[in-house]
Amino acid sequence: MSDIPTTMFAVLQKGDGYSGRSDGPAISDASEYLEPADIAVPTPGPGQVLIKLRVASVNPSDLHFIKGEYGQPRLKGNPAGFEGCGDIVAAGAGAEKMVGQRVSFVVAQGCSGAWAEYATTDAINCIPLRPDVSDDDGAAQIVNPLTAMAMVDIARQAGDAFVVSAATSQLGKLMVSLGRDLGLKTIALVRREEAVAPLKEMGAAEVLVTTDPELLQKFAAISAELKPRVFLDAVSDQLSEQIFTAMPNKARWISYGKLSNEPPKLTQMGQFIFMGKQIEGFWLTSWMRSTPPADQIRVVGEVQARFADGRWKTDVSAHLPLRDVVSNLAEALKKTDGKVMITP
Amino acid sequence: MSDIPTTMFAVLQKGDGYSGRSDGPAISDASEYLEPADIAVPTPGPGQVLIKLRVASVNPSDLHFIKGEYGQPRLKGNPAGFEGCGDIVAAGAGAEKMVGQRVSFVVAQGCSGAWAEYATTDAINCIPLRPDVSDDDGAAQIVNPLTAMAMVDIARQAGDAFVVSAATSQLGKLMVSLGRDLGLKTIALVRREEAVAPLKEMGAAEVLVTTDPELLQKFAAISAELKPRVFLDAVSDQLSEQIFTAMPNKARWISYGKLSNEPPKLTQMGQFIFMGKQIEGFWLTSWMRSTPPADQIRVVGEVQARFADGRWKTDVSAHLPLRDVVSNLAEALKKTDGKVMITP
Repeated sequence: MSDIPTTMFAVLQKGDGYSGRSDGPAISDASEYLEPADIAVPTPGPGQVLIKLRVASVNPSDLHFIKGEYGQPRLKGNPAGFEGCGDIVAAGAGAEKMVGQRVSFVVAQGCSGAWAEYATTDAINCIPLRPDVSDDDGAAQIVNPLTAMAMVDIARQAGDAFVVSAATSQLGKLMVSLGRDLGLKTIALVRREEAVAPLKEMGAAEVLVTTDPELLQKFAAISAELKPRVFLDAVSDQLSEQIFTAMPNKARWISYGKLSNEPPKLTQMGQFIFMGKQIEGFWLTSWMRSTPPADQIRVVGEVQARFADGRWKTDVSAHLPLRDVVSNLAEALKKTDGKVMITP
Repeated sequence: MSDIPTTMFAVLQKGDGYSGRSDGPAISDASEYLEPADIAVPTPGPGQVLIKLRVASVNPSDLHFIKGEYGQPRLKGNPAGFEGCGDIVAAGAGAEKMVGQRVSFVVAQGCSGAWAEYATTDAINCIPLRPDVSDDDGAAQIVNPLTAMAMVDIARQAGDAFVVSAATSQLGKLMVSLGRDLGLKTIALVRREEAVAPLKEMGAAEVLVTTDPELLQKFAAISAELKPRVFLDAVSDQLSEQIFTAMPNKARWISYGKLSNEPPKLTQMGQFIFMGKQIEGFWLTSWMRSTPPADQIRVVGEVQARFADGRWKTDVSAHLPLRDVVSNLAEALKKTDGKVMITP
């Protein structure tokens, strides 16, 4: 391990703890939340590994997190970044046999983040990669794909059709194609007309544009016919509430993101009472805590097979060098046709 | 059955179907929704009974219903009123052995309502009354008491403490005393300071006044200590949302009424995601459809025993003759120290 340097370049969290706000993931200037620094390369503790970064991904959860509105507190001075792909170059006691593996990883709470030349995490948060999975796909193989698999499974158990908002997001597209493969009818909500054809191509049963003035009438007709019971929602604004109130008996609004900062008003409380509707949330961290390891391993294997054989792929809008993250991340995020990937 | 007249006095629904609104149960003038009339005494169909009214109760659900904002459509020209106590004086095929019984009843959908000299309902919607249960208690023995039993059971399965809004309502008081009997800690929300001492007397662990400027700080401290997981809420306004957001992980906001017409805003969508919180509803009709008959009979027996031995009683604020309902109901409802009861 003599080739591991003592210091590294990293992009650090500027905030600490929670902001107490809920503004959505949009950022206009990353330097409000992040700062570049040279810091000591972290040391993996027992059961942990040190990973030399190949590619880190930028997920909405990363942005919520650096803004202090995610489900775990910020740690000022610690590198940001939850997910990536890299090579395990050192390990703490009990994890030694992982050294040398190329892995997908998510950063465990309290470990050193992925937006850095080196990261640490618990060995159990690493998935060894098949050689036929690319670094880009490997860097986005856990957060979105497992969320997609777990949420579409919830939808499948509830009925034959489901609704997905922000369907052009990487996660949205994974869910649309997974729904098609499972024989489910997906009703996809998108912001732009241009997204309709590609999503239908991908297997969506219906695609509706949220700016269409007749959106709600169209949705009501489709809802009456297909009877979707689950709404997998990344936006969680007033339009989400209108979609939810147009859904049939026993509909569940499952929020997994807050792309809008508009607090939705509940205009039809009676639907909870008389129609058995519910609002709930989905968080991959909770799913991982509550799902038996054998089921998780099966899902992880299925995810990797989908990336390896090309059924799924990660659309990349930009590769951003680590040293440009603070200055250029906000600009890079303006492109909406894929994920921003960070390289060392 | 020769003593049954051919016509009767009844208070009829003026509206039809749903109003499409959600304004809460308050009424300023009953004549907007109700009209007096002499109509034919209804004939019980197969499995149904004809009941000569002793006392009918006025529940918030009756008011939501006549305003067109309840879970079943109005039937213009049909008598209003869901619940009462009376004597079965005639029966359709299969229900003959019920004739002569004094019963509590709720009116089945499509039958002739309780705010009339005679009502019809399905025989299975009638509970024969023990002689030691009064007519007033018999007239309010199903809707509120079964709702209280079923909802407190949900709370008990979720933890050791729960929150109840509108705790001075008849249903609220039933839940507070039931919670005490089951060893649960009830956090009661009331509108007036005068209600604090009586509810503590009744067994509430904590009583908070909703107009107290320090309400939310006090609630947060109590919530952190008692960790209530269920909020049984009849109000469903913005304060309800604030109470819900101050509750711990996995809290469930269970709405069973909409006393306020304010649509609450969801200010903390992240709590659904990261804290596993949920919003849902409770409707006795759904509970009756989904709960096995044996369990329902056990609960009904327990309810009647509680009224017979005095653990529960129905506080009556006014007895209103049927012929005065249209003119005087709105005024009678202004008293908040008990239920309005309607007599023939």
